[in-house]
Amino acid sequence: MIYFDNAASSYPKPESVAAAVAFWLRKNGANPGRSGHRLSLEAGELVYDTRKMICDIFGADEPECVAFVPNATYGLNMLIQGLLHSGDHAVTTDLEHNSVLRPLKLLSERGVEFDVAKVDLYNDNRTVQNILDKIKENTKLIVCTQCSNVCGKVMPLRQISGALPDSVRLVVDGAQGAGIVPINLKRDGIDYYCAPSHKGIMGPQGCGFVVVLNDAPMPLIVGGTGSESFSLSQPDYLPDLLESGTLPTPVISGMKEGLKFIKNVGIEKIFAKKISLVRRMYAELDSVEGVIKYIDPEKSLFAGVACFNIEGSHSDSVAAYLAENGVCVRSGIHCAPLFHRKMGTEKIGMVRASFGYYNTINDINSFIKILKKY
Amino acid sequence: MIYFDNAASSYPKPESVAAAVAFWLRKNGANPGRSGHRLSLEAGELVYDTRKMICDIFGADEPECVAFVPNATYGLNMLIQGLLHSGDHAVTTDLEHNSVLRPLKLLSERGVEFDVAKVDLYNDNRTVQNILDKIKENTKLIVCTQCSNVCGKVMPLRQISGALPDSVRLVVDGAQGAGIVPINLKRDGIDYYCAPSHKGIMGPQGCGFVVVLNDAPMPLIVGGTGSESFSLSQPDYLPDLLESGTLPTPVISGMKEGLKFIKNVGIEKIFAKKISLVRRMYAELDSVEGVIKYIDPEKSLFAGVACFNIEGSHSDSVAAYLAENGVCVRSGIHCAPLFHRKMGTEKIGMVRASFGYYNTINDINSFIKILKKY
Repeated sequence: MIYFDNAASSYPKPESVAAAVAFWLRKNGANPGRSGHRLSLEAGELVYDTRKMICDIFGADEPECVAFVPNATYGLNMLIQGLLHSGDHAVTTDLEHNSVLRPLKLLSERGVEFDVAKVDLYNDNRTVQNILDKIKENTKLIVCTQCSNVCGKVMPLRQISGALPDSVRLVVDGAQGAGIVPINLKRDGIDYYCAPSHKGIMGPQGCGFVVVLNDAPMPLIVGGTGSESFSLSQPDYLPDLLESGTLPTPVISGMKEGLKFIKNVGIEKIFAKKISLVRRMYAELDSVEGVIKYIDPEKSLFAGVACFNIEGSHSDSVAAYLAENGVCVRSGIHCAPLFHRKMGTEKIGMVRASFGYYNTINDINSFIKILKKY
Repeated sequence: MIYFDNAASSYPKPESVAAAVAFWLRKNGANPGRSGHRLSLEAGELVYDTRKMICDIFGADEPECVAFVPNATYGLNMLIQGLLHSGDHAVTTDLEHNSVLRPLKLLSERGVEFDVAKVDLYNDNRTVQNILDKIKENTKLIVCTQCSNVCGKVMPLRQISGALPDSVRLVVDGAQGAGIVPINLKRDGIDYYCAPSHKGIMGPQGCGFVVVLNDAPMPLIVGGTGSESFSLSQPDYLPDLLESGTLPTPVISGMKEGLKFIKNVGIEKIFAKKISLVRRMYAELDSVEGVIKYIDPEKSLFAGVACFNIEGSHSDSVAAYLAENGVCVRSGIHCAPLFHRKMGTEKIGMVRASFGYYNTINDINSFIKILKKY
């Protein structure tokens, strides 16, 4: 089997991930921060250590500004819906996932406006200017992906944040970038960041995190926090503000192992590998008859994802053929409608091959051999 | 170690739970319902089978009406915030957890009213009447726990639902009841139910579910669903409406093992065991000097949880002493402020011993021996 669907969920994970989750499920079922007994305190330590590790890897200072959320989509909803209120305006890009677009659309029914800035895949200055051009007096947020989930385009976040007026905050969707594209939130001027455990971080599904480096959002989900229990209002301090109900300690233990893994390997090295796999893939695709490529990987940075079609075929047909031959890719729209409109692929979608840390050039060679027989 | 903190999170779990989660993390990282390859289809099957099992165990017909949510708190927020709109009125009880009270309080700032009905711990008819007395012309929802998280009181849900006017819907918080107290949603007239995996169901933390047997709520969290990707609005059908972002397949596999376990043992049998452990505990507590009991377990049904204090001591001190002696309980307010006001224990909280399936009378005997030395 060739697994090229790492942008959906990374696989395989480092062995330590499954081992840690199973260990916590067997050894400690306790609820962190709820009770004072040994198991609960141990769970609390694990959770705190993981917050610290996230600070370390992603460039934040205070473990308290890291809140665990169920997945990146929930985190984005908490940030977008929690920061934007009636009368506010936001700007996003045409590379975004529905996890950004749908919350913005929902808010547009409640008096929030938003505009979509065009990303120039090969000219970052133009992209930054396109974003600036959309800013109005009431613009409060820019919501931007770290890395496109369809084409892998790495966004010029530092350039964007550097160009923004002081009153405008930057929310970055790290769903595809976290653990793959180097980032340092403080250095790069990012106010809010959010990422899942199970993609580039190589941890389990079932958890993610937001990092809040500016004003806290209003809480979207409220409930038991084990703190201020006599108040019927959610605590106004982080991370409790954003963490209601029982945290998934075993999943967090797996995320911690994933974080350790990417830290030990080094995100710079992972990034270089993913860029080079993409370049190799596109180069090899040239040998396949009828291939339509949408990206020139030599002209900008595209990390971890290659997308293409075969002339005359719907992307679903190509993916189905590949699946029959033991290759896992994803076809269709990838929850990124504006990108497909931009590229003119609304009708047929794209075949997306997304690489994991364990993929090799051999996998690409085998893939190309199979694709040639389509 | 004696683990009496199962109301926070059940422990130990059946061995099959950790084994299943580790198996899925090692064998299949794929995203269900997103791609067409074998791993994704297998993940989709697992998810679907688990929905079916939930229908079977909890008394619903359509797997589609079961939506996976991160935990019971999220599910309650989705139901409460998704069903109540400005001008609506809700009734809840004084046994509720902050996962119910805080969402209602949040909505009260947005034009939703709510009232709290008093539960009579020993007279269910009076409780039902107290709820009915609070119903007004604009009452849309009753939100009621299946079983108190502090005293274990089993609520007369069938009686409540039977007494409600047709226009009033019933939301049941199964956080403490699911897997412990028998329930059949259709037979018992429950419109909405929500439960976590990691308590009575004995699965892992990191997932739960809602069952929707009446009008769907408005979605609170929106984003990628792998469906209707060109629409910037959330799909209006279940379960997609309530399932945004990647589902935690490995966690769901563990939940499925927990569900299998409780189904095989039989919830009736688990319920009987938990009632009897509570009765035994209270009977044994009589032999401990200075014990203050708040409940008479012979006069109504109290499942799985026993709560008490020691005269002259804060509950935290008793719990700390127990922790030092290898006993895990929880003290304080347990995120249920109104219950402590009702019982006059706002200042000292209560010591809560909550039993799991694997606890025995021997555990209670050892516990009592240790407590006597306090």
